[in-house]
Amino acid sequence: MSAVLGDGLREQVVAWRRHLHQHPELGFQEHQTARYVEEQLRDMPGLHLSRPTETSVLAVLKGGKPGRTVLLRADMDALPIEEEADVEFKSQTPGVMHACGHDGHTAMLLGAAKQLSAQAADLHGEVRFIFQHAEEVFPGGAEQLVDAGVMDGVDLAVGTHLMTSVPVGTVVLRDGALMAAPDAFDITIQGKGGHGAMPHQTVDPVVIAAQVVMAFQTAVSRLRDPIDPGVVSVTQIHGGSAHNVIPDTVTLGGTVRTFSDELRAQMPGRLETLLRGICEAYGATYTFTYHGGYRSVNNDPATTERLRKVVREVLPEVTVSDGVPLMGGEDFSAYLTRAPGTFVLIGAGNAEKGMTAPHHHPKFMIDESALEQGVQIYVGAARALTAS
Amino acid sequence: MSAVLGDGLREQVVAWRRHLHQHPELGFQEHQTARYVEEQLRDMPGLHLSRPTETSVLAVLKGGKPGRTVLLRADMDALPIEEEADVEFKSQTPGVMHACGHDGHTAMLLGAAKQLSAQAADLHGEVRFIFQHAEEVFPGGAEQLVDAGVMDGVDLAVGTHLMTSVPVGTVVLRDGALMAAPDAFDITIQGKGGHGAMPHQTVDPVVIAAQVVMAFQTAVSRLRDPIDPGVVSVTQIHGGSAHNVIPDTVTLGGTVRTFSDELRAQMPGRLETLLRGICEAYGATYTFTYHGGYRSVNNDPATTERLRKVVREVLPEVTVSDGVPLMGGEDFSAYLTRAPGTFVLIGAGNAEKGMTAPHHHPKFMIDESALEQGVQIYVGAARALTAS
Amino acid sequence: MSAVLGDGLREQVVAWRRHLHQHPELGFQEHQTARYVEEQLRDMPGLHLSRPTETSVLAVLKGGKPGRTVLLRADMDALPIEEEADVEFKSQTPGVMHACGHDGHTAMLLGAAKQLSAQAADLHGEVRFIFQHAEEVFPGGAEQLVDAGVMDGVDLAVGTHLMTSVPVGTVVLRDGALMAAPDAFDITIQGKGGHGAMPHQTVDPVVIAAQVVMAFQTAVSRLRDPIDPGVVSVTQIHGGSAHNVIPDTVTLGGTVRTFSDELRAQMPGRLETLLRGICEAYGATYTFTYHGGYRSVNNDPATTERLRKVVREVLPEVTVSDGVPLMGGEDFSAYLTRAPGTFVLIGAGNAEKGMTAPHHHPKFMIDESALEQGVQIYVGAARALTAS
Amino acid sequence: MSAVLGDGLREQVVAWRRHLHQHPELGFQEHQTARYVEEQLRDMPGLHLSRPTETSVLAVLKGGKPGRTVLLRADMDALPIEEEADVEFKSQTPGVMHACGHDGHTAMLLGAAKQLSAQAADLHGEVRFIFQHAEEVFPGGAEQLVDAGVMDGVDLAVGTHLMTSVPVGTVVLRDGALMAAPDAFDITIQGKGGHGAMPHQTVDPVVIAAQVVMAFQTAVSRLRDPIDPGVVSVTQIHGGSAHNVIPDTVTLGGTVRTFSDELRAQMPGRLETLLRGICEAYGATYTFTYHGGYRSVNNDPATTERLRKVVREVLPEVTVSDGVPLMGGEDFSAYLTRAPGTFVLIGAGNAEKGMTAPHHHPKFMIDESALEQGVQIYVGAARALTAS
Repeated sequence: MSAVLGDGLREQVVAWRRHLHQHPELGFQEHQTARYVEEQLRDMPGLHLSRPTETSVLAVLKGGKPGRTVLLRADMDALPIEEEADVEFKSQTPGVMHACGHDGHTAMLLGAAKQLSAQAADLHGEVRFIFQHAEEVFPGGAEQLVDAGVMDGVDLAVGTHLMTSVPVGTVVLRDGALMAAPDAFDITIQGKGGHGAMPHQTVDPVVIAAQVVMAFQTAVSRLRDPIDPGVVSVTQIHGGSAHNVIPDTVTLGGTVRTFSDELRAQMPGRLETLLRGICEAYGATYTFTYHGGYRSVNNDPATTERLRKVVREVLPEVTVSDGVPLMGGEDFSAYLTRAPGTFVLIGAGNAEKGMTAPHHHPKFMIDESALEQGVQIYVGAARALTAS
Repeated sequence: MSAVLGDGLREQVVAWRRHLHQHPELGFQEHQTARYVEEQLRDMPGLHLSRPTETSVLAVLKGGKPGRTVLLRADMDALPIEEEADVEFKSQTPGVMHACGHDGHTAMLLGAAKQLSAQAADLHGEVRFIFQHAEEVFPGGAEQLVDAGVMDGVDLAVGTHLMTSVPVGTVVLRDGALMAAPDAFDITIQGKGGHGAMPHQTVDPVVIAAQVVMAFQTAVSRLRDPIDPGVVSVTQIHGGSAHNVIPDTVTLGGTVRTFSDELRAQMPGRLETLLRGICEAYGATYTFTYHGGYRSVNNDPATTERLRKVVREVLPEVTVSDGVPLMGGEDFSAYLTRAPGTFVLIGAGNAEKGMTAPHHHPKFMIDESALEQGVQIYVGAARALTAS
Repeated sequence: MSAVLGDGLREQVVAWRRHLHQHPELGFQEHQTARYVEEQLRDMPGLHLSRPTETSVLAVLKGGKPGRTVLLRADMDALPIEEEADVEFKSQTPGVMHACGHDGHTAMLLGAAKQLSAQAADLHGEVRFIFQHAEEVFPGGAEQLVDAGVMDGVDLAVGTHLMTSVPVGTVVLRDGALMAAPDAFDITIQGKGGHGAMPHQTVDPVVIAAQVVMAFQTAVSRLRDPIDPGVVSVTQIHGGSAHNVIPDTVTLGGTVRTFSDELRAQMPGRLETLLRGICEAYGATYTFTYHGGYRSVNNDPATTERLRKVVREVLPEVTVSDGVPLMGGEDFSAYLTRAPGTFVLIGAGNAEKGMTAPHHHPKFMIDESALEQGVQIYVGAARALTAS
Repeated sequence: MSAVLGDGLREQVVAWRRHLHQHPELGFQEHQTARYVEEQLRDMPGLHLSRPTETSVLAVLKGGKPGRTVLLRADMDALPIEEEADVEFKSQTPGVMHACGHDGHTAMLLGAAKQLSAQAADLHGEVRFIFQHAEEVFPGGAEQLVDAGVMDGVDLAVGTHLMTSVPVGTVVLRDGALMAAPDAFDITIQGKGGHGAMPHQTVDPVVIAAQVVMAFQTAVSRLRDPIDPGVVSVTQIHGGSAHNVIPDTVTLGGTVRTFSDELRAQMPGRLETLLRGICEAYGATYTFTYHGGYRSVNNDPATTERLRKVVREVLPEVTVSDGVPLMGGEDFSAYLTRAPGTFVLIGAGNAEKGMTAPHHHPKFMIDESALEQGVQIYVGAARALTAS
């Protein structure tokens, strides 16, 4: 197996990725994306295609030799961000953008499907290519796909993620805890609106919200065991529509990230206690909704070790790193409730080319030379893990 | 002159008000309102009608006897508030509402026009009925109307405002400072967005905005001479659109109210210094736009004293009060740059009927029995002030 | 009567003041001050001396002609401030300082006693010179002196205050509300101490106290009618004694100033509600003690008008101003519960000489040329008010 | 060797500990403590005693057989905390308390010296018992002792710490990072004092300090990589001495804990930037002093593994745990700059007996049954590590 994709596949993968980048769709709305993926897969021999859910695509490839069943996963959804990157393949959908690399994941898995479908006779077992919807949106597409049966009979699962925080040329393969449990919250602070010039006749929810945001900082800085990683981010704050009208309500939304079950379980109560105290200080009321998110991603050490060997073989020039746990969540954990597996982080950052914007940033951009590596990792993983 | 409106005028004024209440329009957009007002005025004999601006209406009535020229003013615009009052004449326009009583002002001035037009032969001088647009929206309609010449040749100006904070049956006539200068500000806090789970890679504008809101409280509580009234209200705060994306920016908007020129002049610099310090603490940048609003309303003591006599005559059952200065602004001050005059506050609150919601509140509601008093005050003022 | 003090009295008053300035004593501890004052008075003929309380001095002068009884008051206590002024008569007591001008008041009243005692035969009625203790310390010396009978039989009361915020050469005589009601509070926030490196095992009272300080700003900026003056100052904050030990408690202390009875009555409840909410947000407890202070000072318009005439006669070169209400409190209000009177503010600031530091500041310094004016006002008031 | 201390040694160790508990002394002031320790050691045969510094004691015991040199360390200083525990051996020194278990450490090491001195003939190599001063006070006694030569020629170092957060019966032996680098800071916020009723004439340092405390929370919650443990605690806040005087300054002090060199290096700059921005927002100035503390404690895995074996042999009933990294600092790291070693945490908490108060708490109390285990560990370590 060559470390270089032949037959124009490299260019094809880049073209796929750029097409997807130009046409991003939000989670649960990936109608055109799924259709596009399906069209590409239709040209590849030996794939059995289906739609486990409305906007996801499953391609099954049976090898010519006996072996194990391995699931390869890519996610396809984009984010509600207005792209600010200056590229010719910029998002054509206002306010929606592939700012998390899912366009690349999808293109890489298409490339792997193309290459493996051409080698089917030589392949062991079965490879399932799952093009997943809605990784970015609770409750996530992965759980729906598991419920739909895509993991039935699967022995091992492999997913990948392009990372701009990792330089291209480095691949992270980590045993154990890799990604945090991402929970979320929505809050409405109910004050009492009125004229902006007569605050004493109102219960001003803006001033209450400001104090809640600051109090939430202490859930991380004071109430948490410093050894046990945790994040609370208030990412949304909205209230008011006129300069001289104090609004009735302010809404807050945000995310909570934890690794330990203990801290995860404590967070909703701690945040609500802070919220309640400050609302009561002002005679305001509130609603507090907590959304339990994905489980944390824990990689199987044995599978991870086998992937290390694969990467050293197929990408000898690449650096393999243990990495560190990441606070970001991933619903790849849903697949791991049914079979062991590993989640691979592929470096796609490039400081020289200015590709350093973090994920979910309006200027997020990957180094496309990572795409070829991704294809190789998918292909190598499938061949190695199905074989024994 | 009778203290009771005859000939069904009372019912007519209520009907006008309810029609206007059902069809509210925002400032500078009062197209249907102006057309409706014009239609009503067209039926009244002796009025010369014109449109000084696109959405305002001027009616001029020449009296049969020599005398002075008096301007009577009502404002017509509504607010961007979703009405929550449970009345059959509730706003039919989603998100727009007469929550400041302008519907009543317009109806009262229509009533005064009707009554005075029937008495034209007996009237001295000239009465100008100005149905003003855009009192709630900077830079206000009054200044445009002054520029358009409606004050040219005017000797005295009288305006009124229905107040739910004053019980119906009380009229406020105050010498000197009555209403504050209402300025406004818009702020954009420019941080650096990113993934909600990786705050250290971002400059979080939500946390900065929360601290700016709290710091702005000290502009009132610490930096201001306690004797010199001042208000700073952050009434708008907006940022973020996804649970797991820290936004790039948060926008703030609000109002500043002052009476003294000294404090008014200091406020923009003080607020910007607070904003700048906190942004620099986090490496964020900002934009700060300050909108100078209306001048403060200062009533002419002589005109006010004459109005006190008028009210005692035409509404002997009414209590006349000195009131207190109000933090709300009014572009009636624009007329007072050209001629002396007075601004009359008419009680329209009624605790027994539950009509106590403050101005600009979704449940704002006036006691309609104040409307008849308003008509009487306009008519009495016009007759008395034109006569001598 | 001459506008210039004769016979070296001017120099004597300055010398008295400088002696007092060098030997400041805190309220209720004015033992040496009272003894010193008594010694000076003993040399003046016709004065009947007594000690109404341990550290106050009363001198009574009977005039040779019938008339009314007038009380002239000076206060004598100093403040717990370390003087930073660079003068040769600097405080010799570490941490204690005449930073509010009481040294000047006492010297001026001594000067008036000296001058009037020399004119006793020509004087009407009776003049009571009260050298009061403890104006700066709750519950104040004035109430004790009223209880001790110094106001029994008094017809009118006059007090003065040197003001660096008013330029020397200006005297403020104001009808009605002049000085605020100064209340105070003490708070203990009871958290749970522990190791500074393990905040999650503590309830950190420092972070709670910080939020309480910020919430108290909103008692002024949001909860108060902007027209009704009010101040809340947290002036004391104390907690912790080691870098690596989170303390169990933080204590807060401060002052509240109001003019209206309504706002004054609301303040304790509002502050405690804010405190309680924030403590409950963190599972902390608290103690909250509110100290009702002096009543607000309201000058009798008739007496004030008579003083205006006196000042114009005896100090024709001086500007008489209406001034503005002051947020500072004064237990002179206690005398006014028994008889009408007026409290005179005497300008003692001088920008050219750098005498602009506010009261209670370590660099507070008065322009001594105001002292002579103060003597004249006391003498003129006594002569005029006793006479009719 | 028996797991039970014979010859009344158990009671002796408890008695030593209680004596020390009753007579606590702060760091660098352990004069009586050092004298007391020296007196106890003088009765034990074969020990060579010296005073490496004024308040520390070194006892050297040469074994009868050849071997390695092992240093055993106990710390002796107490904390500036007023004891609230209700025990008969309560601290007799007001405001000073053994709230960190150093009394126990010292007693345990005395016990080990007694037992080992009785077995000297049978002992290999050399054991150095160092009774260290000033572990709680920067720059710490350990560095002084290293400078004084106590580590010269030492092959391995062993220290212990009694922990109430670990239940008695558990001993923590951890490879690698065990304890954080504890740095500290002192801040003076220089505002401009004045009268509490006239905040606009001051620059109020209390309100500035409150905002700095809250901003410092974000150094942990927003500016830090969530994976990299860090703590910032403001443990001291002091300003103001009168209810009606806004102070000129507020002082803050606190501790910073980190494990990684990168985060440790970033903290001072981050905190100062936050402080500077908020001071500039109000026109205040500041001083910021950062005290670099001890290095983090990193245990040598080989030595730690050998200690595991020792504990299993001498204390078979005890649970050996890997524990977790602790945010507390320890100047035991100074010894580890000269030789490898390990720092052992000995469980001393007991929920049933109510011994759960955290370290540095006024009610801190250890379960004395841990003392015997400590003696056994010191003795076992000395015998095992000197032997080979």
